[in-house]
Amino acid sequence: MGDWVETEIRVRYAETDAMGVAHHSHYLVWFEAARAEFCRARGIDYVQMERDGMFLPVAEARCRYRAPARYEDVLGVRVRVTMAKRGLARFEYEVINNVTGVTLAEGETVQALTGRDGKVIPFPPEIAARLIG
Amino acid sequence: MGDWVETEIRVRYAETDAMGVAHHSHYLVWFEAARAEFCRARGIDYVQMERDGMFLPVAEARCRYRAPARYEDVLGVRVRVTMAKRGLARFEYEVINNVTGVTLAEGETVQALTGRDGKVIPFPPEIAARLIG
Amino acid sequence: MGDWVETEIRVRYAETDAMGVAHHSHYLVWFEAARAEFCRARGIDYVQMERDGMFLPVAEARCRYRAPARYEDVLGVRVRVTMAKRGLARFEYEVINNVTGVTLAEGETVQALTGRDGKVIPFPPEIAARLIG
Amino acid sequence: MGDWVETEIRVRYAETDAMGVAHHSHYLVWFEAARAEFCRARGIDYVQMERDGMFLPVAEARCRYRAPARYEDVLGVRVRVTMAKRGLARFEYEVINNVTGVTLAEGETVQALTGRDGKVIPFPPEIAARLIG
Repeated sequence: MGDWVETEIRVRYAETDAMGVAHHSHYLVWFEAARAEFCRARGIDYVQMERDGMFLPVAEARCRYRAPARYEDVLGVRVRVTMAKRGLARFEYEVINNVTGVTLAEGETVQALTGRDGKVIPFPPEIAARLIG
Repeated sequence: MGDWVETEIRVRYAETDAMGVAHHSHYLVWFEAARAEFCRARGIDYVQMERDGMFLPVAEARCRYRAPARYEDVLGVRVRVTMAKRGLARFEYEVINNVTGVTLAEGETVQALTGRDGKVIPFPPEIAARLIG
Repeated sequence: MGDWVETEIRVRYAETDAMGVAHHSHYLVWFEAARAEFCRARGIDYVQMERDGMFLPVAEARCRYRAPARYEDVLGVRVRVTMAKRGLARFEYEVINNVTGVTLAEGETVQALTGRDGKVIPFPPEIAARLIG
Repeated sequence: MGDWVETEIRVRYAETDAMGVAHHSHYLVWFEAARAEFCRARGIDYVQMERDGMFLPVAEARCRYRAPARYEDVLGVRVRVTMAKRGLARFEYEVINNVTGVTLAEGETVQALTGRDGKVIPFPPEIAARLIG
């Protein structure tokens, strides 16, 4: 199981809702920003992958919300890969309030590697190795 | 287990991403729009509930993506409540392409009923009864 | 100057912010949903246009916010085209609270017709005629 | 006229659309993130202002889009205040591709200072001074 890669995210006003907290849908966007940072940290060039006809759409997403995030909060979004085989990779996430240290949310996504036709294809070994770390 | 309530949603351009399909985070927004329609259909006035100091934040969300939605697609988002006891309610969702009939996604959320202080409170019996239907 | 086409939009919870009102960025999304309805009403198939290599990106957008929209408010978003020549079209918008009749916002966008290479191209006469109405 | 304050923003996948570029509505969100950074740089605590019953809603927004931003692009979003009197402040923005140096967009917003009742109130002199810089 690979190491965590952490991304810092500051909650934007546009991400808050009428309850005064970050809307729950944005956690999936933060997970995605964390995956992008993860790929950069592991030397995976996702922009180039798309140019080469490989895509990583989300096949499944899950989030458990433990405590709210508020405007201007500085969050640490941690991600690691717990599985990458055939054409599927499982990512785990933790969202931490970086000032208080409180865990705000935990989540998982399953990403499928697909070609331009949307069909799942196996990970090239080099990419699987970089994902697992 | 209650009946489904269905809401029609047309995919907006702003909801698409560079893969040419609706971004996965918007399904949580559509689930929420479906919950709003569900509450209206069951005679629950959520706006008034918030004025009365009752909130229904999302404690957990999950979505399995089976096929993509594209710009201008007309979707049916179905929701029903499978459990409502103490302060928790479980909602199930299906997202259908209303032209082809293909199921695009399935999901669940768990909502907690809370007061202004964020603490979970039991559902008033009348609201629980309306949720279960 | 063409007639208004009106689209009904219900404010989503995800569109509200910590001030308890719809976030100002969503008005641009509603303008876009209104343009889509406008095109349908005028017999312009934008999805087909993109397949044919014609795109209508926004070159300029402006909005004046007069009164807030809140969760569950039912809005009327009106749009008309005030100019379409060479490769540019100007759209005007009004956002109305459909219950109170109050004007919430007014806006304009300028759209450029471009090819796949992003270069501006003149409107085919048939499309210009449909836009102007 | 005050100096520019610059914020770095990396384009998120969720911010792209089916044209493969950042959706135009997100520029208003980036302007807002830049205003937040601007306030921090000038010693204005906006979170505390809201607690004290002062809000800065957007009264008008405008953006001219010159060139597209794409996934993973690193942008510099510059903001300065060109006017702050009575209860209105005018902000100017530039969005630059930080790698190529190309200007992608220019914009303005007018913010109104309001109390909890939504009525415009004059800027406290200390805040006006910090805005103008």
